[in-house]
Amino acid sequence: MNDLKQTTVIGLGLLGASISLAVMRSFPRMKVVGYTHRASTRDKARQLAVATEVVDEMSRSVMHADLVILATPICTFESIFGEIGDGLPSGCIVTDVGSTKVMPHRWAASRLPRTVHYVGSHPIAGSEQRGVEFARDDLFDQAMCVLTTTKNTNRQAVQTLEEFWSKLGCFVKSMAPARHDKIFANVSHLPHITAAALVNASSEADLKFAGKGFIDTSRIASGPANIWADVLLTNAGNTIRGIDRVIAQLTELRNAIQSKDESQIERLLEKARAKRAALIDYKIKSKEMIS
Amino acid sequence: MNDLKQTTVIGLGLLGASISLAVMRSFPRMKVVGYTHRASTRDKARQLAVATEVVDEMSRSVMHADLVILATPICTFESIFGEIGDGLPSGCIVTDVGSTKVMPHRWAASRLPRTVHYVGSHPIAGSEQRGVEFARDDLFDQAMCVLTTTKNTNRQAVQTLEEFWSKLGCFVKSMAPARHDKIFANVSHLPHITAAALVNASSEADLKFAGKGFIDTSRIASGPANIWADVLLTNAGNTIRGIDRVIAQLTELRNAIQSKDESQIERLLEKARAKRAALIDYKIKSKEMIS
Repeated sequence: MNDLKQTTVIGLGLLGASISLAVMRSFPRMKVVGYTHRASTRDKARQLAVATEVVDEMSRSVMHADLVILATPICTFESIFGEIGDGLPSGCIVTDVGSTKVMPHRWAASRLPRTVHYVGSHPIAGSEQRGVEFARDDLFDQAMCVLTTTKNTNRQAVQTLEEFWSKLGCFVKSMAPARHDKIFANVSHLPHITAAALVNASSEADLKFAGKGFIDTSRIASGPANIWADVLLTNAGNTIRGIDRVIAQLTELRNAIQSKDESQIERLLEKARAKRAALIDYKIKSKEMIS
Repeated sequence: MNDLKQTTVIGLGLLGASISLAVMRSFPRMKVVGYTHRASTRDKARQLAVATEVVDEMSRSVMHADLVILATPICTFESIFGEIGDGLPSGCIVTDVGSTKVMPHRWAASRLPRTVHYVGSHPIAGSEQRGVEFARDDLFDQAMCVLTTTKNTNRQAVQTLEEFWSKLGCFVKSMAPARHDKIFANVSHLPHITAAALVNASSEADLKFAGKGFIDTSRIASGPANIWADVLLTNAGNTIRGIDRVIAQLTELRNAIQSKDESQIERLLEKARAKRAALIDYKIKSKEMIS
């Protein structure tokens, strides 16, 4: 950790700018260089002082970096790896904060030089809001951060990143990218998809009568559509299998209602209730932030 | 409203006890008599003083009532109407706070004497918690309350109930029971069903990685299974049609992911995002409590 003198954050949306602010808070001596492709966002980022320095060229932003963090939509990673590859200092650690990890590992292997170390990161933090102006330096306090590694991953780079995210407030876990993508299709992509399906299944006139239950259940459907389209496309197989399982569950409940099988309806609802109660217990015991 | 001297609440769970507390807060001179079928709950209700008086027999609880409110599971309404019918004072208003309204109207028409006035009520308030100990006198502040009426409903009784729920803090709207059941299948039952399906579609091991998105999206799956089974069974047709629409939406998104149709994925997610944004705007403008 003592080796890290400069972190570069590429992409200064809510997530990237929050990382930048959190690094400035947690590593007072670290230089944080920010780059983002829109000039207007760079201006805002400078006004809000979300980084030590905001530069106008991506290649220049990484020139002296010990750690480079991509916080742009997943579909941009491959070309960014290609664009910055040649200019990365030897031994530099490269990571990203995308919500799927198999494809980023693949792109890093094919596009980044052997002289740098790629590790995937997925901090489970965010907001349905977007934009640099919503950035917060405490976004990662008590959040989980999953690091993804393969047999080729440099162990020292993993250890450095573990310490980095821990210092930002995260609980860090490591796993293989394929396992990550299977789990997060279920616990992250599916809630988004069911929330969107729920909203789209009702008319605007009916929605006026929605109460707190509907509002909460649909909250994450307010996330940015382009970011989520990327996520779903880069984890298509797991997502499709997940949707099929949700449809199977809905069909089971539907059929129980149709055949007026009260005990089966109760059994299915009670199973969900008990599973969620166990989940909340686990989250409370592990002291993760869940609200 | 000046005529109401005694309100009787049958069923002292979270909802019934909260009504009782809210009445005591908003109508300091009103007598609130509570009854609930479990002796242990009656003891708790007395200890917590959630009603002016808690009595041991249902028939005695309604003897001098101007307004009787059923806050028990929907499946009990028919027999309770039968049990209390003969003992109700002439001109008494009877209502219930069940989440479906077509069946309660039917049972009231067949089981209650002509000398009393039935109106359906559905205050859109509650909690995934249950039990008299979670009762709150502010549960109805800025909540919506839908009254259901038919061509046979006594207009004076409707007006009295409108004033009653308004005094408890509600925005009151009136509609026919069939319209109510169609709307609330969509905005209330479906979120519960999709939340339960989402939880049941993932393994407990995967759920340990759930973040705030999953927790929020699944919150209402923690509601009591028996209460919800009743709700779904008494509004089966609308609920089944709603599930079919959610499945159709999920299938549309699934097929777009499978065919890697990025613009279609974005279109579906953006439609949901925009609809929800319009919903939140509407709720903010109408000053309803949504969080």
